[in-house]
Amino acid sequence: MRQKIILDTDPGIDDAMAILFAEAHPNIDLVGITTVYGNTTIDNGTRNALYLKEKFQLNADVAKGTDKPLVRPPVGATVVVHGETGFGDCHASEPQQATADPRPAYQYIIDMLKANPGEITLVAVGPLTNLALALEAAPEITSLVKEVVIMGGAFGENGHRGNVTPYAEANIHDDPHAADKVLTADWPAVVIGLDVTEESMFSSAYLDALKADAGHVGEFIWDVSRYYLRFYAQKLGMDGCHVHDPSAIAYVIDPTLFTLRKGPVRVISDGPAEGMTLQKYDGRRYMTDDWQDNRSQHVGVQVNSDALLALYREAIINYSQGTSGK
Amino acid sequence: MRQKIILDTDPGIDDAMAILFAEAHPNIDLVGITTVYGNTTIDNGTRNALYLKEKFQLNADVAKGTDKPLVRPPVGATVVVHGETGFGDCHASEPQQATADPRPAYQYIIDMLKANPGEITLVAVGPLTNLALALEAAPEITSLVKEVVIMGGAFGENGHRGNVTPYAEANIHDDPHAADKVLTADWPAVVIGLDVTEESMFSSAYLDALKADAGHVGEFIWDVSRYYLRFYAQKLGMDGCHVHDPSAIAYVIDPTLFTLRKGPVRVISDGPAEGMTLQKYDGRRYMTDDWQDNRSQHVGVQVNSDALLALYREAIINYSQGTSGK
Repeated sequence: MRQKIILDTDPGIDDAMAILFAEAHPNIDLVGITTVYGNTTIDNGTRNALYLKEKFQLNADVAKGTDKPLVRPPVGATVVVHGETGFGDCHASEPQQATADPRPAYQYIIDMLKANPGEITLVAVGPLTNLALALEAAPEITSLVKEVVIMGGAFGENGHRGNVTPYAEANIHDDPHAADKVLTADWPAVVIGLDVTEESMFSSAYLDALKADAGHVGEFIWDVSRYYLRFYAQKLGMDGCHVHDPSAIAYVIDPTLFTLRKGPVRVISDGPAEGMTLQKYDGRRYMTDDWQDNRSQHVGVQVNSDALLALYREAIINYSQGTSGK
Repeated sequence: MRQKIILDTDPGIDDAMAILFAEAHPNIDLVGITTVYGNTTIDNGTRNALYLKEKFQLNADVAKGTDKPLVRPPVGATVVVHGETGFGDCHASEPQQATADPRPAYQYIIDMLKANPGEITLVAVGPLTNLALALEAAPEITSLVKEVVIMGGAFGENGHRGNVTPYAEANIHDDPHAADKVLTADWPAVVIGLDVTEESMFSSAYLDALKADAGHVGEFIWDVSRYYLRFYAQKLGMDGCHVHDPSAIAYVIDPTLFTLRKGPVRVISDGPAEGMTLQKYDGRRYMTDDWQDNRSQHVGVQVNSDALLALYREAIINYSQGTSGK
């Protein structure tokens, strides 16, 4: 039974790693890629998605999303992490055949959920603006989605708090108002944040081995990740990179890799902790408690990192050999 | 060498416990008590302070402070915790001789700091509005105070997050704007929050023993705490109460009881985490970091609870016997 997903993404280097993971694994049916500003501009990100569609002959639709957050001024592309065009040293050429769906991303999401009620999991690994716009335009999609899996946020578990501010993770910080809307909506959401994504690492050696063992797919992942690894080395002194966006795909493939904690989630929209995510996970009632009637969501607090790394490697190798069963 | 302190307080049951602790211990010279709304109204709190001054013949001045927060609408007295008049079942009679200083609390604080440069520690165990007003009226007091010790906040250590909302402690929640002003001012502050105060407990048996062993002082502490203990029993299922305000006094007497963590502190003023305190305690620099130029403050993260309880008991017993050395 393959799980249909729409992947909402801001490609982005680890986004490319996630797109290929979703395409590679036999348990996932990647029906659509919706793009959003974030790691790079909306134009760069959409071109990068179409480039992957053409290069790897993806069946997935590509629908172009919004270029800016709901309320806050745009933070701007993270060129220092993902490079000028979003794919580090690899500058994606203009696609020759692949074209984007004519609909804006939020409309594509709405239409697909209505056409496939209860069947599609939304996996969002960029700022949550497209999902918020879809919720605004068609609130009824909350009952049509199977699950919403989000890479974003940081809840302080395992000492992980923020990566772009001391208390905020980049995707949520890019559009905290959208994130609060998405995370307080009445649909089942799973948040895979820095608490778990920073617990897994694609080491330099792991990526070298993938290049050696996974043909043209491994080579592309290696090429696109050079810029990213230089950032990690220079900024964080790491010989490798955290596994951000692919962790959300790993959750869809095998939820047992993660330990989840239940409780309503809110996002701080303003002030010095703008973009901070918080979960209420005790049963206590408080004098002032504007959380208690919110739906409980799930937040990842532990990950079986070794198993996740093995899952990724196996999927990419099988895919590169045409033995993925797809 | 006795440490001069001004105790800014909203009496309040645990405030009474703290006032008597400060008066009792030979290392402390309680020069002034400044009152503030919070646990009870400013009128109740001021009457309670004057009642203690008269009943226990305190030398300390009593100066009446402000009745409302800087910006946010007042939360209101916590009658459920401290009772209608702030002293639980003990309704303080109107003082016969004791009178308040004519100056408002913030002016008293300014004048005393100017008259005793470098000598006075401000200990604040209520909402931080008086201190913020003093800073606004006389910013130069930052260089005149010896130290600012604050009971308030919750930083998530030891699992302690909030007591009036899922993420906010009462004193800070009562006036987050004042708290952010006080905690980002350029003076040395130590924050004794729920992270440590909820790690110590005055058990029912402990208070019974204090009643038996500490004469009229022990009796008053026992009487005033009955209402408070009923709240703890009914609301939290505890046979005793946390040691909130007395912990700030304990820090002044013996700082080695606490383990502190260094880093700038901010307070969230609005939104679902209104009143939340946050500390930046890593050395990392972030793309967006409006904390990095703030002064590092100290936050209590561990407490030697047994030693704290013994210190309190010994001080109150010696004081009740007139053997405190004062």
